[in-house]
Amino acid sequence: MADVPNDAPEHCPGTSSDQAGKSSACQGCPNQNMCASGAAKAPDPAIEEIRQKLTSVKHKILVLSGKGGVGKSTFSAHLSHALASDDSKEVALLDVDICGPSIPKIMGLEGEQVHQSGSGWSPVYVEDNLAVMSIGFLLSSPDDAVIWRGPKKNGMIKQFLRDVDWGEVDYLIVDTPPGTSDEHLSIVQYLSSAGIDGAVIITTPQEVSLQDVRKEIRFCKKVKIPIIGVIENMSGFVCPKCKNTSQIFPPTTGGAQRMCEELNLPLLGRVPLDPRIGKSCDEGRSFLTEVPDSPAAVAYQNIVQKIRDYCSSHSTPDNPC
Amino acid sequence: MADVPNDAPEHCPGTSSDQAGKSSACQGCPNQNMCASGAAKAPDPAIEEIRQKLTSVKHKILVLSGKGGVGKSTFSAHLSHALASDDSKEVALLDVDICGPSIPKIMGLEGEQVHQSGSGWSPVYVEDNLAVMSIGFLLSSPDDAVIWRGPKKNGMIKQFLRDVDWGEVDYLIVDTPPGTSDEHLSIVQYLSSAGIDGAVIITTPQEVSLQDVRKEIRFCKKVKIPIIGVIENMSGFVCPKCKNTSQIFPPTTGGAQRMCEELNLPLLGRVPLDPRIGKSCDEGRSFLTEVPDSPAAVAYQNIVQKIRDYCSSHSTPDNPC
Repeated sequence: MADVPNDAPEHCPGTSSDQAGKSSACQGCPNQNMCASGAAKAPDPAIEEIRQKLTSVKHKILVLSGKGGVGKSTFSAHLSHALASDDSKEVALLDVDICGPSIPKIMGLEGEQVHQSGSGWSPVYVEDNLAVMSIGFLLSSPDDAVIWRGPKKNGMIKQFLRDVDWGEVDYLIVDTPPGTSDEHLSIVQYLSSAGIDGAVIITTPQEVSLQDVRKEIRFCKKVKIPIIGVIENMSGFVCPKCKNTSQIFPPTTGGAQRMCEELNLPLLGRVPLDPRIGKSCDEGRSFLTEVPDSPAAVAYQNIVQKIRDYCSSHSTPDNPC
Repeated sequence: MADVPNDAPEHCPGTSSDQAGKSSACQGCPNQNMCASGAAKAPDPAIEEIRQKLTSVKHKILVLSGKGGVGKSTFSAHLSHALASDDSKEVALLDVDICGPSIPKIMGLEGEQVHQSGSGWSPVYVEDNLAVMSIGFLLSSPDDAVIWRGPKKNGMIKQFLRDVDWGEVDYLIVDTPPGTSDEHLSIVQYLSSAGIDGAVIITTPQEVSLQDVRKEIRFCKKVKIPIIGVIENMSGFVCPKCKNTSQIFPPTTGGAQRMCEELNLPLLGRVPLDPRIGKSCDEGRSFLTEVPDSPAAVAYQNIVQKIRDYCSSHSTPDNPC
């Protein structure tokens, strides 16, 4: 859980537990004395610094999925493009997939680098109102491997939140790696005071994916992040020659629709497979402007509108839209 | 790198560096004194215990990919099924995807549990000669989320290698999560004395996937794991109605073939998309026996034969096939 330090032993009871510093697992842990004293219950001061830094960010949305390769980065990119198509909105996209950052490629920003200014790291701008930050901008080559264990990844995520000069932003979209581990715990922990509007969960129709996605939903419930809704990606493929629809990843257990009914979650929409989506991503262009009338682009736009509506209706007086 | 402890600060020089315990980053690190004394250069004793435990395992193969959702678990499962179709061979499949274990589902073993015996944890057997171990067997429900940071994941991987009673095994297949982080560093570190025959790298044809796979190849080179070869999955889809082939994930930069040429790596084969693969996985059955004559099954079998040949030709006198 979020209150287990990076250097904790396997059966750490958690720094906020009554057993902190006192359980048998604490023997030999470097934090034992601090935990036993109660000092470890104090939150990381970065959490407050991040809250202050992000007071200029109205809405914060996580894009999550238990499974990889279901289209999280593709959706995050297109959500950002769609929100930024309204010139009056400022949009920021943060990639916290430290070991597999795809956002620079998908946003057409490969080879770009961040700049340091007096007020922090400057993100890379796709357009005047669309800022992007990714570890990809810090690598000397797109093929460079980031071979880091958790603590280094967590330090990077903290820097992205605390040290990037995002400016006034209407929507901050956070693209995550698959799983429920360091990156996920860190983003939730560091944004715990700043506040997260909610999470969008991406899946594909087959049960092997839904099973991992249910784990991600459990994660959201445990860390108390509201779920905006679920998107089913790669939902059928229409043959360009004969127009026959094939279920390439068959929804053998009823797909996202049945899962959403069972878990009482909104299904935001289904996006069909379209080879032009992958092609647009590889070429760093927005599929929404490349092929705006395609069924997949229309599905994306409908989903984005639901996310806009969610954010508007969930504004608080402290955080007006 | 592998010699950075789990609780190291961000700029840890590594325990085997000349700067260990002495660099400015070491200030305040709980390991500083141990590193400065040189004691940290001693390897984790578990590495030797694992070497002894795995002397009964002839070949150890990692299945890797930078990107999620490209078919690592599906391939790992089918590689295991194919190798075990020879009754004279003993096969073991280890799932080190701690946060997204798909192997129990794909192998038709959901709801199974491991048992403790005098000689360690007993794996779950699909057939007499096919043993499986996954954290999925330790969860009370398949929807349970494993919300663990790196150190706990690493401890689990150590237990899987040291405490599981694998017995006499010809092939140990290790299925990994996407990325180049804790799970990957740990499996390589813990198997460093036992020895890894090589890694099979899985990709899909589009550049967004190849980019992550190049990072995984860099990882293999850095940690000195031989690469057996690359498999291109989801390589075209034949419409079941009109037989037209569509490239759903288009190889905009030449796909795995061009990458393999550039990096001088063997392309083991290409597996087309077939909805029956996903269906077999959801139902926990082997696609290779369900539809043995399909182009995808034939492609899988050809690839498996190349892996068998690799292992035979790479036997060492200490480790005869």
